[in-house]
Amino acid sequence: MTLTENLTNPSNLPPEDAKTQVSQFMQNLQDHISKSLEELDGSAQFKEDSWTREEGGGGRSRVMQNGAIFEQGGVNFSEVWGKHLPPSILQQRPEAAGHPFYATGTSMVLHPHNPYIPTVHLNYRYFEAGPVWWFGGGADLTPYYPFYEDAAHFHKTLKAACDNHQLEYYPVFKRWCDEYFYLKHRQEARGIGGIFFDYQDGQSPLYKGNQADSPAKEMPNPPNSRSWQDVFNFAQSCAKAFLPAYLPIVEKRLSIEYGQRERDFQLYRRGRYVEFNLVFDRGTIFGLQTNGRTESILMSLPPLVRWEYGYQPEPNTPESKLYEVFLKPQDWVNWSDKK
Amino acid sequence: MTLTENLTNPSNLPPEDAKTQVSQFMQNLQDHISKSLEELDGSAQFKEDSWTREEGGGGRSRVMQNGAIFEQGGVNFSEVWGKHLPPSILQQRPEAAGHPFYATGTSMVLHPHNPYIPTVHLNYRYFEAGPVWWFGGGADLTPYYPFYEDAAHFHKTLKAACDNHQLEYYPVFKRWCDEYFYLKHRQEARGIGGIFFDYQDGQSPLYKGNQADSPAKEMPNPPNSRSWQDVFNFAQSCAKAFLPAYLPIVEKRLSIEYGQRERDFQLYRRGRYVEFNLVFDRGTIFGLQTNGRTESILMSLPPLVRWEYGYQPEPNTPESKLYEVFLKPQDWVNWSDKK
Repeated sequence: MTLTENLTNPSNLPPEDAKTQVSQFMQNLQDHISKSLEELDGSAQFKEDSWTREEGGGGRSRVMQNGAIFEQGGVNFSEVWGKHLPPSILQQRPEAAGHPFYATGTSMVLHPHNPYIPTVHLNYRYFEAGPVWWFGGGADLTPYYPFYEDAAHFHKTLKAACDNHQLEYYPVFKRWCDEYFYLKHRQEARGIGGIFFDYQDGQSPLYKGNQADSPAKEMPNPPNSRSWQDVFNFAQSCAKAFLPAYLPIVEKRLSIEYGQRERDFQLYRRGRYVEFNLVFDRGTIFGLQTNGRTESILMSLPPLVRWEYGYQPEPNTPESKLYEVFLKPQDWVNWSDKK
Repeated sequence: MTLTENLTNPSNLPPEDAKTQVSQFMQNLQDHISKSLEELDGSAQFKEDSWTREEGGGGRSRVMQNGAIFEQGGVNFSEVWGKHLPPSILQQRPEAAGHPFYATGTSMVLHPHNPYIPTVHLNYRYFEAGPVWWFGGGADLTPYYPFYEDAAHFHKTLKAACDNHQLEYYPVFKRWCDEYFYLKHRQEARGIGGIFFDYQDGQSPLYKGNQADSPAKEMPNPPNSRSWQDVFNFAQSCAKAFLPAYLPIVEKRLSIEYGQRERDFQLYRRGRYVEFNLVFDRGTIFGLQTNGRTESILMSLPPLVRWEYGYQPEPNTPESKLYEVFLKPQDWVNWSDKK
């Protein structure tokens, strides 16, 4: 069977109200995350901008600035449609060519004040186009100062969400995340990763070997037949795991005192976030090149950033430990066993 | 005659010591600019890093940090060679396919402390590959606060350098600069422009209509036959015009007092410099994607940068004047006549 035949197989078809269901879920996710972050911060509130898109659809951008904990946080929901997907996506899903598309998703980036609290990113999204549909997304953590237990907690929480559905998910999507959030020109990971997946349509194998950012071919990748509902349930589980994965880390680190040294290092490392998002992130580049809402797309950029020519961390410091251990892919779930 | 036939025409051939001549010129340019900037700054000095490139060649990176005038300045010289040019360049010069290449150039970006002093960029470069050779480069100014006379002075100085060679140069290369240094996602020019040209081989018309960043087709573009020496002389005149174009502006503005408002606006606008260099600048992206020396390439990024969601300048302020007038292409040379 070809992918198109597979995808038009009734057992794989989305329900009639699929768009409504997913869009409602994405909006609830935005609401739930915004509300929880406001409660945690205790000081600042999200400001919402609603916007519409000429070609179809729109969104709700929410930004928090100068909170007690969060220097800046953006949580965006969008739901858009149009006549055809851009070539970069059609290359991965040629079955969608010539068909109108629908896409909805929620994305979030948080930049805390305290350098001991990691920056975090989440994005979940859903596409329909002619005979094909798919879910994508993930969550990843970018610490400035290295804490093994935080990295292990973040990964264990996401792994548990994955394991509830399929044991193959976590190892494949953890590695995909490591490979996607990688700064080639620095030979550094963006952070300690998390999970990332794309093109989950319930019929294809977990990843396609020809994708620039999919895991290497030696990963297990058997045919993997799931219904639309299975995949949606999985995406929901991942999304729900975000707050339990991140909030305990914030609570643990928010009272650690810091000085100019830690602040300077945080601002310097934030430069890597900018470099990744502007040079490598397909979502950002795609958005900027296709008349997306610039202010919403670039809400992911940190409020204050430093670049410093030739910076090198001093040996035997927390900063050098970040580079040597935390900016390389690690088996965080089993970290304690290896020490 | 085809381009290849043209270029192997003896009158168009580079002299035997072309590489040595141009490389020496580029090094002298770096030396002359660094020395003049140190004299002007009066406090900080450039620190030099020499580097070599595994595939062939190397360079001298020079950076000044925390000067009296310049918060950061980078002036780089490089001279590299290899087995073949990257596909992005071969697309523009298919005659170079299958041939080894040689490239040398000097590039510079200055980020002053005082927001009343503009940021400035310069780059001149020379390529040889099999039957083809060409010069490229230019200089452009990015003010934070709007001064008509500064914009006019910068453009008039560059125009005079161009006019000494051909009257066609300035209008074509001014427009090319406006079109190249443009942030599509912001619908803003990066600054007030200057001049920019590429692929000047003495035989082709001044620009190729199929280049993504070359001027629009309605520009005058007759065949334009020049010897190697003519084009080299032109590039030298442009390069020599840089200090007289920029230094008087620095001297005029360096004593203007400023406060947090001007500093904040400068840091915010520097974000656009980052966005341009990482999203659009072919040199930067090419360098990052082909194992260039990352620290030298990203020396162009400002030392401190701000992003602010939804920022809009207040009406009837110097900041709004920058947006309304200076971030749109203007006929700066004749500005006083139009007022």
